Amino acid sequence: MKVRFGGDYNPEQWPEEVWTDDYRLFDTARIDTVTVGVFDWALTQPSEDVYDFSTLDRIVERAAAEGRQVCLATGTAAHPAWLARAHPEITRVDFEGRKHRFGGRHNSCPSSPVFRRLSAEMARRRAARYAGNPAVVAWHVGNEYSGACYCDLCAAGFRDWLRKKYEGLDGLNAAWNTRFWSHTFYDWDEIEPPSALTEHWRGPDHTAFQGITLDYTRYMSDAMLTNYLDEKNAIRESSVDVPVTTNFMGMFRGLDYHKWAPHLDFASWDNYPPDDTSQARMAFTHDLMRGLKDGQPFWLMEQTPSFTACRDVNPLKRPGVMRLWSWQAVAHGADAVLFFQMRASRGASEKYHGAVIGHSGRDDTRVFREVAELGAELDTLGDAVLGARTPARVAILFDWDSWWALEISDGPSRHVKYQSVVLAYHQALWDAGVDVDAVSVTADLSRYDVVVAPALHMLKGDIAQRLEAVAARGGTVVTTFLSGRVDEHDNAFLMDVPGPLGTLMGVRVDEWDARAPEVINPVRLGELVVESRLLFELVIPQGAEVVGEYQSDFYAGTPAVTRNAYGDGEGWYVAAGLDQAGVSWVMRQVLDRHGLSGPYPDVP
Amino acid sequence: MKVRFGGDYNPEQWPEEVWTDDYRLFDTARIDTVTVGVFDWALTQPSEDVYDFSTLDRIVERAAAEGRQVCLATGTAAHPAWLARAHPEITRVDFEGRKHRFGGRHNSCPSSPVFRRLSAEMARRRAARYAGNPAVVAWHVGNEYSGACYCDLCAAGFRDWLRKKYEGLDGLNAAWNTRFWSHTFYDWDEIEPPSALTEHWRGPDHTAFQGITLDYTRYMSDAMLTNYLDEKNAIRESSVDVPVTTNFMGMFRGLDYHKWAPHLDFASWDNYPPDDTSQARMAFTHDLMRGLKDGQPFWLMEQTPSFTACRDVNPLKRPGVMRLWSWQAVAHGADAVLFFQMRASRGASEKYHGAVIGHSGRDDTRVFREVAELGAELDTLGDAVLGARTPARVAILFDWDSWWALEISDGPSRHVKYQSVVLAYHQALWDAGVDVDAVSVTADLSRYDVVVAPALHMLKGDIAQRLEAVAARGGTVVTTFLSGRVDEHDNAFLMDVPGPLGTLMGVRVDEWDARAPEVINPVRLGELVVESRLLFELVIPQGAEVVGEYQSDFYAGTPAVTRNAYGDGEGWYVAAGLDQAGVSWVMRQVLDRHGLSGPYPDVP
Amino acid sequence: MKVRFGGDYNPEQWPEEVWTDDYRLFDTARIDTVTVGVFDWALTQPSEDVYDFSTLDRIVERAAAEGRQVCLATGTAAHPAWLARAHPEITRVDFEGRKHRFGGRHNSCPSSPVFRRLSAEMARRRAARYAGNPAVVAWHVGNEYSGACYCDLCAAGFRDWLRKKYEGLDGLNAAWNTRFWSHTFYDWDEIEPPSALTEHWRGPDHTAFQGITLDYTRYMSDAMLTNYLDEKNAIRESSVDVPVTTNFMGMFRGLDYHKWAPHLDFASWDNYPPDDTSQARMAFTHDLMRGLKDGQPFWLMEQTPSFTACRDVNPLKRPGVMRLWSWQAVAHGADAVLFFQMRASRGASEKYHGAVIGHSGRDDTRVFREVAELGAELDTLGDAVLGARTPARVAILFDWDSWWALEISDGPSRHVKYQSVVLAYHQALWDAGVDVDAVSVTADLSRYDVVVAPALHMLKGDIAQRLEAVAARGGTVVTTFLSGRVDEHDNAFLMDVPGPLGTLMGVRVDEWDARAPEVINPVRLGELVVESRLLFELVIPQGAEVVGEYQSDFYAGTPAVTRNAYGDGEGWYVAAGLDQAGVSWVMRQVLDRHGLSGPYPDVP
Ligand SMILES: [Zn+2]
Ligand SMILES: [Zn+2]
Ligand SMILES: [Zn+2]
Repeated sequence: MKVRFGGDYNPEQWPEEVWTDDYRLFDTARIDTVTVGVFDWALTQPSEDVYDFSTLDRIVERAAAEGRQVCLATGTAAHPAWLARAHPEITRVDFEGRKHRFGGRHNSCPSSPVFRRLSAEMARRRAARYAGNPAVVAWHVGNEYSGACYCDLCAAGFRDWLRKKYEGLDGLNAAWNTRFWSHTFYDWDEIEPPSALTEHWRGPDHTAFQGITLDYTRYMSDAMLTNYLDEKNAIRESSVDVPVTTNFMGMFRGLDYHKWAPHLDFASWDNYPPDDTSQARMAFTHDLMRGLKDGQPFWLMEQTPSFTACRDVNPLKRPGVMRLWSWQAVAHGADAVLFFQMRASRGASEKYHGAVIGHSGRDDTRVFREVAELGAELDTLGDAVLGARTPARVAILFDWDSWWALEISDGPSRHVKYQSVVLAYHQALWDAGVDVDAVSVTADLSRYDVVVAPALHMLKGDIAQRLEAVAARGGTVVTTFLSGRVDEHDNAFLMDVPGPLGTLMGVRVDEWDARAPEVINPVRLGELVVESRLLFELVIPQGAEVVGEYQSDFYAGTPAVTRNAYGDGEGWYVAAGLDQAGVSWVMRQVLDRHGLSGPYPDVP
Repeated sequence: MKVRFGGDYNPEQWPEEVWTDDYRLFDTARIDTVTVGVFDWALTQPSEDVYDFSTLDRIVERAAAEGRQVCLATGTAAHPAWLARAHPEITRVDFEGRKHRFGGRHNSCPSSPVFRRLSAEMARRRAARYAGNPAVVAWHVGNEYSGACYCDLCAAGFRDWLRKKYEGLDGLNAAWNTRFWSHTFYDWDEIEPPSALTEHWRGPDHTAFQGITLDYTRYMSDAMLTNYLDEKNAIRESSVDVPVTTNFMGMFRGLDYHKWAPHLDFASWDNYPPDDTSQARMAFTHDLMRGLKDGQPFWLMEQTPSFTACRDVNPLKRPGVMRLWSWQAVAHGADAVLFFQMRASRGASEKYHGAVIGHSGRDDTRVFREVAELGAELDTLGDAVLGARTPARVAILFDWDSWWALEISDGPSRHVKYQSVVLAYHQALWDAGVDVDAVSVTADLSRYDVVVAPALHMLKGDIAQRLEAVAARGGTVVTTFLSGRVDEHDNAFLMDVPGPLGTLMGVRVDEWDARAPEVINPVRLGELVVESRLLFELVIPQGAEVVGEYQSDFYAGTPAVTRNAYGDGEGWYVAAGLDQAGVSWVMRQVLDRHGLSGPYPDVP
Repeated sequence: MKVRFGGDYNPEQWPEEVWTDDYRLFDTARIDTVTVGVFDWALTQPSEDVYDFSTLDRIVERAAAEGRQVCLATGTAAHPAWLARAHPEITRVDFEGRKHRFGGRHNSCPSSPVFRRLSAEMARRRAARYAGNPAVVAWHVGNEYSGACYCDLCAAGFRDWLRKKYEGLDGLNAAWNTRFWSHTFYDWDEIEPPSALTEHWRGPDHTAFQGITLDYTRYMSDAMLTNYLDEKNAIRESSVDVPVTTNFMGMFRGLDYHKWAPHLDFASWDNYPPDDTSQARMAFTHDLMRGLKDGQPFWLMEQTPSFTACRDVNPLKRPGVMRLWSWQAVAHGADAVLFFQMRASRGASEKYHGAVIGHSGRDDTRVFREVAELGAELDTLGDAVLGARTPARVAILFDWDSWWALEISDGPSRHVKYQSVVLAYHQALWDAGVDVDAVSVTADLSRYDVVVAPALHMLKGDIAQRLEAVAARGGTVVTTFLSGRVDEHDNAFLMDVPGPLGTLMGVRVDEWDARAPEVINPVRLGELVVESRLLFELVIPQGAEVVGEYQSDFYAGTPAVTRNAYGDGEGWYVAAGLDQAGVSWVMRQVLDRHGLSGPYPDVP
């Protein structure tokens, strides 16, 4: 066993003589694992009644013969043109209400019976055909599940989903607060998907009814999970122990990966950070992906060796960067380092996406050399790092529901972004050199000294009590503005802000001030004065000690940061959008309390 | 009698035990008036054949029993979901041509026979049921009429409206100048609503045919007025003397409030200014609303006690601001100061909109205390200010047709905004401490010394002659660039610019220069040099005296501001987009002429 | 013979007494040519079975009687309302999939059989009626062909076009690289127009499949060319020798004018530059339009005498500018100087578009005087300049396919714009005072000393060999980053970048770095250090000499500009987005080599 090395490989796009070149170059670069078949539905099922696996047979046979291991995709991430023509139900209706026709990828209506039947059948046949091949080491279902559909089939599916969730329409009407704006539903069929044609204005984040929009988002995540399970179950009919995964996209808003994760045998994800200053962000995302399966190793399923293609600007990874980022993944728990892709496509939208082998097929490019050098390093390493990791004593809570609720909310501020708040707290910990777990709100918190809950807008289940328990036994809980605001249905708690977190935090918030991004309110933190922006909650301490104070506006001198003794521990409340220096100062106090500051605590 | 105090109240969203808390808090805050039933159509008509007023009965009875006065809404501003399902005609088709389905509010097609029948029936039944209750002091029809529909029913309605307006198609073809771009209509049914699918490009302000777009805007305003009248007439069947209103939105572009006003028994409006530096803007809007009914008192129907929710950034009203703005409303003629809303909703899009009573139900918040203090002040005041007001000697003309025509025009500049021009002239008067009436172009001008007509793009009826009459008897008329350009059909006058205002102004304009917003042309005004931007008309005096001159470009040294002796008075022409200092200088000269400068003329 | 002077004239919008005024003013201004009938379809065909040319008869007769020459339009650029109602097929479906209804102009589906039949019939009847009138000196087909349609008729037409282009579906699948993303087509009817409903995301430039988008763009250009030919052929049935044209729009992306040009008897175009600093741009565009017909004279069919109307900001042409630009057109090969329009429309979207005669009908405006003065100058000139021109020794290649392919590409950078690159190289030549031809990639290059091929992304046919031939015989070829990347199907060349240009350029490019617009990499060129932006290709010389080097980033010191000896000549490769100073320096070296620097080589 060693860290896997390889990536997406599409030999079906090339004549077979090119495959020989490929394997020669794979040898050079110590490529041991290839992901094949991700987009070959049209090739392997040329019409509804005909399956043709001859090319895929040759691809898998050749890989096996060359001694590679195969991550075999089910190929269902883009349906064939003939299928869209024969069964128009398979294409989506978008948020604007437009019925799509054949094109693109990730384009199937998740509720389409035809899609569900044929995608499962494709997975079933592939499993039956290739499960016996020992080169096949993993099943890769679909690809980067994403998007949403608003068709009539999805509307019907949504109503079924709602019927199961709510006892009856009374429950739904209460949950969605439908007496507001005359929205009482008297029949399930009156419910429409929330879209530009119904509840939304300006875009997907602007809704008249948060409740329905939130539930539709959850439903879409579940509907695609059902698509994944359709295929996984079909695979399991003949392949009982080869692990099954699908490639996630890190902090992707569309799907609640915490709900998906139990159904994956291992997590895997595609790392395309916004730019080359994203090291901390990537570290957090690795932690989040590792946290999906309670710390088990994951695969880095895709990264580019050089540049992406789909962005407005696609910069080149500097020399050494690809290597560095690959090792970062391994250090955070990856036991596979894979690229998209092995050989660059000739045409279409990824023609300029970086690849291990470029259009000229050379082995003397800088990029190929760096890949080969990394391959050699990973070979030398062997199984030294597999599975190794120090347990973290600090956790950051990450919650898709809070993300959604916060960003579809009308008021207080459209400028507050969930990821930004979370990442600022992670950055503070990363700068301090502290190991972090990124976990869901249902995770076991008993192993952590410090639990950070940035912008935990929605409180579900017993999370408030479990956070109190962390403090009660001596730990520290940190939370921020816009936490503790709503229940699982996005209804406000009928109590002082921050709702059920109030006791732990020892504060009460009656009012808050949102200001334009250019407005700064300085906050004094000990000797330090930092900046705060966007949102300023006005805190009335209910036992908490004031740690930082606003320096301007009519609330100058009132608390912006507080600390509350609770049991043997503490609850910290950060009421304003502190800048990074402020967040880092707060977290440093907390870490110091637990002796958790890293080896270079003064290095930012 | 005293200034009413209270606001929107939605007890149907709450269990009845909460109502008891509400009235306790209303007592504390001296709340005497509540607006109820604004969005309860789904509650009061659960299906087409069933009306259920039991909850509304209890709400009204309780209010009366508690000694409050009730502004009773007809509840028709959002139709029920069952109705949209049973009669899809009721939902709108938007500007993009998309048929909407159930969702949102202000969502009914104004031409839908079902909507017209059922909304009138709802108003009829409410009037019949509650008219005898002496607590009911006003009828509140619909809510914030707005939006537009482009469905086939509206298209048919538009054709009927056009048939009534124009003698025949010849008249219409002449009015719309349809020989341009091959647009001659030979049959009424060839006429389509102007939308993204027909005449428009880029958006609602960009049209190939101003004539049809202008008429459709007028038609939509009239169609909604018809909706209002449907309900008002139904109310009058059983309630003969309780006054009827609907809440306007100040300078709202969608409806010509001057055409609506005669049909309201009193005006009322919702004041949600863009930010807390909007005092002058609010003053003008109050003047405009008061001017709708020839100076009669109006109601401030809604304002937030603290913050809004629907904006990107929703700042908190500073301590004292709510009080200050409330008194400003009273000073400008309001005899009601009402809030949206009494108790904050738990869920949906106004959950974070400020309210007198927040989610915690407290009476010890700053906001509640300020409301209660204002309640006490208004109680103390009694009827002292009701109806009192000094007649203004200065009028600003405000004209929806000019607003529309100016902003849907292709050329000269998309950056010139009607409101901005008007507000600059009002600001000058407000800074000078002068009382102002904001009136329509059909208002009686004989009582004013000074009439300001900023950007009066369209001249209708005898307005030019009546402005000449103002000057003839010694008054001063001020107008600006882009005035006097088009007739009521938006066809250019076939004469020198500024058309029928040319004689009064004593100028002729052959050409004009629009420049990007960053281009400034200094203008000398006496000793002062100010900036001008956006549009620079080149003035050739025809008897007028030059007051200010451009300082740069090839027209440096030519007139930017002129004054023309006319009868015993003067006509002033401001040919460029002067900055505020420039506008204020001009207006100060005019005010000085009439001894109208306020008590602190040198304080800006 | 003299340079024609006049413009678009729409007397059908006016009562006939106005025509008398018009001709009086035309006499004053020496107007000798009028374009009539451009938008009179609704007037001349009031219903499907009725044609009524009575007004057009009077217009043409009057023009002839007044001694003017007539450019007679076919009137088909906007269909009548009755036609859209009777045959809804005629209106377009837009990129968003929305079926349009009557409105606007340039609004007909090019594939509509009804449109094709009736537009040809209209042209046929006009030719039959007026061909014998000696005043008719040119036929003006349609107007500013533009826009695209995505309806089912166009989809069917697209499939026919594809069937003719590709031997079979195998050829198409290979050309579009459809094995990518499961796009293999098994039946022609599976192919959908590429739109927001199929392959596109974000807009027309963002496509999942460049191949289909590129072919659809070509198809639309061809489909409209077919519309033009329908009419031209109908005209030729009775008018055998009056030349036929349509007015182009300069660097207009929608149509491949190089493919259209052979079918025009002379080229003509409408010059509406973005602003009054566009002299170099206009010079290039004139060169491009002249190059369409191999250097033959063209008509300046439209320009405004003063201002446009359709832009956000419509500045006034300064005194003398209209004259200057008119002479520039003549100097670049125009033998007609025409205006849009002779008399300003009263209403609709061009009411504020400048005209020779304004709404007041005056002859004493500055604009009218300048027109009249130019008319007198042109009269004095007579035939002195007609057809005269020095042959250019420098050519710039302009290629619509490269334009399209570059800008619909995913990666490397959305900020690189084809026109900007081309214009920078032209600006360098213009600043140097050098005559330039702007020619297609199929033009005869044997007459040029220098051939510049900026951003020649796509290499078709034998262009690489013909560029080599230029250098082989001693000429210089200059090309840039993003050249030589793809073949005619937009598939990458399977060789080193710049593909078939590699031998001539003596370089190899393995990787490239796209950066945000604010990132600058200085480039040293001899003594000069200039800035480069957007895209930085990393060049590995294969025989070329290094001329300029990057100054920063990890590729500092590597080549940014190279020169390769080839035969008796040279190939220059500019690997980065140099600023204007850099481009000018490069071009100056090249010009110096051929002794081509203009008379004032040091004046920028
Ligand atoms: Zn669906
Ligand atoms: Zn309608
Ligand atoms: Zn079409």
